Amino acid sequence: MRTVYWENGAVCMIDQTRLPHEVVILRCTDYAQVAQAIKEMRIRGAPAIGVAAAFGLALGATRSRATQVRSLLSELDQIAGALRQTRPTAVNLAWGLERMLRRAASLAAESSHAQTIRDALIAEAQAMADEDVAVNKRMGAFGATLIKDGDNILTHCNTGSLATVDYGTALGAIRTAFEQGKRIHVFVDETRPYLQGARLTAWELQQLGIPMTLITDNMAAHFMARRQVNLVMLGADRIAANGDVANKIGTYALAVLAKEHGIPFYSVAPTSTVDLSLPSGEAIPIEERSPDEVTTLRGVRVAPEGVHAAHPAFDVTPHRYVTAIVTENGIAYKPYGESLSRLVHRR
Amino acid sequence: MRTVYWENGAVCMIDQTRLPHEVVILRCTDYAQVAQAIKEMRIRGAPAIGVAAAFGLALGATRSRATQVRSLLSELDQIAGALRQTRPTAVNLAWGLERMLRRAASLAAESSHAQTIRDALIAEAQAMADEDVAVNKRMGAFGATLIKDGDNILTHCNTGSLATVDYGTALGAIRTAFEQGKRIHVFVDETRPYLQGARLTAWELQQLGIPMTLITDNMAAHFMARRQVNLVMLGADRIAANGDVANKIGTYALAVLAKEHGIPFYSVAPTSTVDLSLPSGEAIPIEERSPDEVTTLRGVRVAPEGVHAAHPAFDVTPHRYVTAIVTENGIAYKPYGESLSRLVHRR
Repeated sequence: MRTVYWENGAVCMIDQTRLPHEVVILRCTDYAQVAQAIKEMRIRGAPAIGVAAAFGLALGATRSRATQVRSLLSELDQIAGALRQTRPTAVNLAWGLERMLRRAASLAAESSHAQTIRDALIAEAQAMADEDVAVNKRMGAFGATLIKDGDNILTHCNTGSLATVDYGTALGAIRTAFEQGKRIHVFVDETRPYLQGARLTAWELQQLGIPMTLITDNMAAHFMARRQVNLVMLGADRIAANGDVANKIGTYALAVLAKEHGIPFYSVAPTSTVDLSLPSGEAIPIEERSPDEVTTLRGVRVAPEGVHAAHPAFDVTPHRYVTAIVTENGIAYKPYGESLSRLVHRR
Repeated sequence: MRTVYWENGAVCMIDQTRLPHEVVILRCTDYAQVAQAIKEMRIRGAPAIGVAAAFGLALGATRSRATQVRSLLSELDQIAGALRQTRPTAVNLAWGLERMLRRAASLAAESSHAQTIRDALIAEAQAMADEDVAVNKRMGAFGATLIKDGDNILTHCNTGSLATVDYGTALGAIRTAFEQGKRIHVFVDETRPYLQGARLTAWELQQLGIPMTLITDNMAAHFMARRQVNLVMLGADRIAANGDVANKIGTYALAVLAKEHGIPFYSVAPTSTVDLSLPSGEAIPIEERSPDEVTTLRGVRVAPEGVHAAHPAFDVTPHRYVTAIVTENGIAYKPYGESLSRLVHRR
């Protein structure tokens, strides 16, 4: 099953807040529901929300009553604005919407009818979903070359099927290595506060039969010191032109720890995650989410009432800590300014 | 209120598994209940469990039916063995029991009666409790000299009143600095899996009125990178002769991160935590607790059923990462082999 798909005029997605306890499909019949689902992290993962937003825009187009192309386009602009605002850090969201808007504008320039544009937008979002799967498999093949038989891999957050349309980014590479017959073991950071590791990655690895050990985020260093971790492999939400990587909070700590222990640190992400417009990671907006997500855990309050908490949802890892960046077009090494740009322009 | 105290022939303690939601006093009328409470972390913190075990031994003595000194002593040996086994990492537990057994043995050598030994053991445990508070205040005064007006301090786990009989170790130093009028702010790691930071440290700081921000453990590096943390101050469960520090899981990662960001890393612990019999941290036993404490959170399951998890409860920070060790007898700097031994022998 895909994480997000179009069915009978609705955008359907696995509700990830219900995992691993139950697999529930959320059916959105209105773009505002898609926006809400992204905001509430019912769907998450940079590539997945890029495609979900594209589907959301297609949904908005089909539900629009505009008969004139000009009014349809202006409505699409508004809808894209609402979808873009849901989560600021992952660039894939803006990238997906841009691609959809470009498609609409080019059809308008060819004087297509509003209905033609509607149909084309559904097809475009479908194509993006299919491409995402294909891109992940190519990325997985490149990533798997960095994994040796016997490796112990540490990963953070969820970068599997659930973070994408299907197959995954970093977890796709791990899966590819496993399917190649390499004997591997994965340490899974639980990834507070949202527990994407404990809830989603552990669930995916369990279904794939890949040996794993779930740990709390603060245990990673202990297992590195005991030489039980050979490499760190995780995803990215936005990569600046110089190779600085924004990813789930906790990533930067792992990068520093990997360097201190002489362990390679790999980021696996499609070229749609690379934002060449930003010279460095400093300009990447870091989403601040509700502190309630820190003071409670799956509805259970863990801290006293009234306690002040912070919740930056991402952090930025400076490129000097990143051993390589794996994309669907190949593996980028330092200096990233050159290597990343070459891989992005091959897309 | 003290964390642990003797009252009407019972060992009473604040049940820390119920905090911060309710303050419940657990009354133990039998040494096995004390052992169980320590094992289940109803009381925790190296100094607190040292005193709790001493009270437990006194309780065992008062409940013993032995009329002969020799049989009382042999019973005490057995009871001490049971109490010592509850938690292997913190040396204070063994230290507290040794001191009690030495007291009993020396009275036996003076041909005291069994009842005299019983009374003396209660008095000895009481004295240890009182000394713990006095020691913490002296340690707090030394530790506070390392904190400047305006400092942002990162702390981990709970090192406050609840980790001791009263006043705390690292949190005692933070409290002393605050009471001296220094404007400080504390970042509190929630400290998975047991959430001692979110449940206990946040609660204590709130009651003391000390400004704080609760964060998940994986956020510390982000705030260090943003230069929002000036120093790391935390406790210890056992310190080897060379200054290697065993402390709550997650400590070692903070030490590496502090070094990378040029931030001082201070361990605050009484000399009873220093184990000069161990040349280095490698020989410190690391308690492995139940993986259920990782896969569930306050009774709520967070990972899929059947997932393999690990739960080392402590880690070891090599001395090269430790800027200074604060004790009740002064502050030890490198080389610790010399400085620690000098401070310990002053006790």
